[in-house]
Amino acid sequence: MNLPLGYAYSATYAGIRQAERDDLALIVSGLPANGAAVFTQNRVQAAPVTLSRRHLKISRGLVGAILINAGNANCATRTGDAVALATAKAAGRLLKLPPAQVLVASTGVIGVELDSKKITGALPELVKNLRAENFERVSGAIMTTDTTAKTAFAEVGLRRGKVRIAGMTKGAGMIQPLMATTLGFVMTDANIPGAPLRAMLRRSVETSYNRLSVDGDTSTNDTLVLLANGGSGVRPDPPEFPAVEQAIAEVMQSLAQAIARDGEGARKFVTIDVSGAPNNEAAARIARGIANSPLVKTAIAGADPNWGRILCAAGNMGVAFDPAKTDVYMQGVAVCRNGLAAPFSEEDLKQKLTAPECTIRMAIKGKGKGTARFWTCDLTEDYIRINGSYRT
Amino acid sequence: MNLPLGYAYSATYAGIRQAERDDLALIVSGLPANGAAVFTQNRVQAAPVTLSRRHLKISRGLVGAILINAGNANCATRTGDAVALATAKAAGRLLKLPPAQVLVASTGVIGVELDSKKITGALPELVKNLRAENFERVSGAIMTTDTTAKTAFAEVGLRRGKVRIAGMTKGAGMIQPLMATTLGFVMTDANIPGAPLRAMLRRSVETSYNRLSVDGDTSTNDTLVLLANGGSGVRPDPPEFPAVEQAIAEVMQSLAQAIARDGEGARKFVTIDVSGAPNNEAAARIARGIANSPLVKTAIAGADPNWGRILCAAGNMGVAFDPAKTDVYMQGVAVCRNGLAAPFSEEDLKQKLTAPECTIRMAIKGKGKGTARFWTCDLTEDYIRINGSYRT
Repeated sequence: MNLPLGYAYSATYAGIRQAERDDLALIVSGLPANGAAVFTQNRVQAAPVTLSRRHLKISRGLVGAILINAGNANCATRTGDAVALATAKAAGRLLKLPPAQVLVASTGVIGVELDSKKITGALPELVKNLRAENFERVSGAIMTTDTTAKTAFAEVGLRRGKVRIAGMTKGAGMIQPLMATTLGFVMTDANIPGAPLRAMLRRSVETSYNRLSVDGDTSTNDTLVLLANGGSGVRPDPPEFPAVEQAIAEVMQSLAQAIARDGEGARKFVTIDVSGAPNNEAAARIARGIANSPLVKTAIAGADPNWGRILCAAGNMGVAFDPAKTDVYMQGVAVCRNGLAAPFSEEDLKQKLTAPECTIRMAIKGKGKGTARFWTCDLTEDYIRINGSYRT
Repeated sequence: MNLPLGYAYSATYAGIRQAERDDLALIVSGLPANGAAVFTQNRVQAAPVTLSRRHLKISRGLVGAILINAGNANCATRTGDAVALATAKAAGRLLKLPPAQVLVASTGVIGVELDSKKITGALPELVKNLRAENFERVSGAIMTTDTTAKTAFAEVGLRRGKVRIAGMTKGAGMIQPLMATTLGFVMTDANIPGAPLRAMLRRSVETSYNRLSVDGDTSTNDTLVLLANGGSGVRPDPPEFPAVEQAIAEVMQSLAQAIARDGEGARKFVTIDVSGAPNNEAAARIARGIANSPLVKTAIAGADPNWGRILCAAGNMGVAFDPAKTDVYMQGVAVCRNGLAAPFSEEDLKQKLTAPECTIRMAIKGKGKGTARFWTCDLTEDYIRINGSYRT
């Protein structure tokens, strides 16, 4: 995999989580990158979210490093702000960066004090081991209940040369991103000014992380950062921006899908397509309603073509549509036409629904042109098992 | 139990559901009752909902009978409207009532044609067996995945004499009533005119069925009917209305709680109290957010005092509040003070959380005076098991 130029990565075990697995990671850009970020819209926000937001403002979007820990969300704790600031400062000192060019991100349990010394103590070694090839290791260090690391890559050939994009993300539960999710870091070596970079992130989030739900819970720590450091020496011409944005969006969509695939307890990945809604936002609302319905998600788990639940979930989202003009497809098979049962072989479709990839399509046949694609997973007994005792 | 005077009940097995258990029921008022009703706000509405709404309009709120079936929702079916009308007419004929004085209600699977002949064929016997003492039997006939019948009773002594209230309800899944839930029937023998009766129902729903969620799904068939037939011969004086309303509200609260207690797969009944929100509606929003969070519900299932999830769920509801001024209690034990971990014995609280009744209290300490009480249940593996194969 061709990684973006000019970035280095490092991860280590700092004793933050009990299991002896990397829990502290550092992403550094050799030359300060333009950064854009989106954060959780939860009213309760973790200290690293508050600090990173402030740092981006002070630094006018310049980012030199991102310090990330897993195992503790640094949220709703007495010392949260102080810990976030102290660790950002310590990283800045070692990396010779102004503290405001250091972003911090945390994920893990809420409400447990995070010992900053565990982080500052591990920082010198972390900095010493910074390497481009540690990208994969960092993607592993940020995991919590994830069963696999989640990365995605792209390259775009432009007039002046090639630019590369690499992204990583984590997340398996407490997932319903709204303007951001969980943790996600996307690096490119294209040289993109701050303003278009922010616009690219905003639009790409809309069709990737904001189209994803595992359990409908939006976390307190959601942070998605996009860095562009110009390490390739290639500055895209403005007419080339759409091609770069397209590649960034695809990397983010791939990451978002990876989260749904690894949803806590999930055995099936579900893609939901809605068309014919009054507008794209309404289509996304309907798709989100279907994705968040425990009854739909358990039916998928049970390979049960229970389309009535899909129609019912769609009807609850406050979007005006005519059920009598609505078709529903599961695995490409028409199960509902014009709001009524379509003839289909129960046997065959049950068999098809045992596949690890399931699709639900809802087509409203009216004047509306709104469409949305959304990703989720099934809801299984294992979700309950994982979350009945995650904390203790 | 003293049942309201002037009502008769009957139930039988009409072959609508596979299991040979009563699935057809009739509630009849000897003299036409004033009726008030609320129905689902789902965009997809079952045929009996549409018809009952129309009948109430035509009859100006006079109700003589309610015909109820379980096992089939008569929703999203080709023949739905015709079946609802034919069965209401057949019941009217046998009971010598104008069809518009007959309401219909259905619950069960969506999208499967309901054979009206099963109902009309069973009606003569159903009418023949109408008895006041069949109240309990009807409350059993309307069950679907319920494990117990749900009834509640009250009496109020007024100046002119005693009036009685009796209610029944069903429901265990697809439960997040909005202005109504599932099926609920509340009868009183007080003589209450239509307008105050409707106002009583509207306000009572607000503090009972609208404060309940099992899984966040609002059904297509939600119907709650309140009948007042004057069978007691007692017409409350307007100053006595609040006492009658209070008793009606208590019966409805008791029914709503019974639904949460019997939530699909539930082992624990959870009461959520929120205080200090900007207003009662905002408090209810926060409480609903906590009640619907799969992470909170699985933590309760696992007896895990994971208060961070409670704070997080509350933060997602779009209500402005200051986490730093927020306390959270579980089983009466302070687990979070001013947004931070409060000292508590993990051991003790885990033990307390194994109780079948759990309480969550969130106190926002500001200028707000909004309060809400909400009911839900824990989320267990059994919910998944029940819903992975309900239909097939």
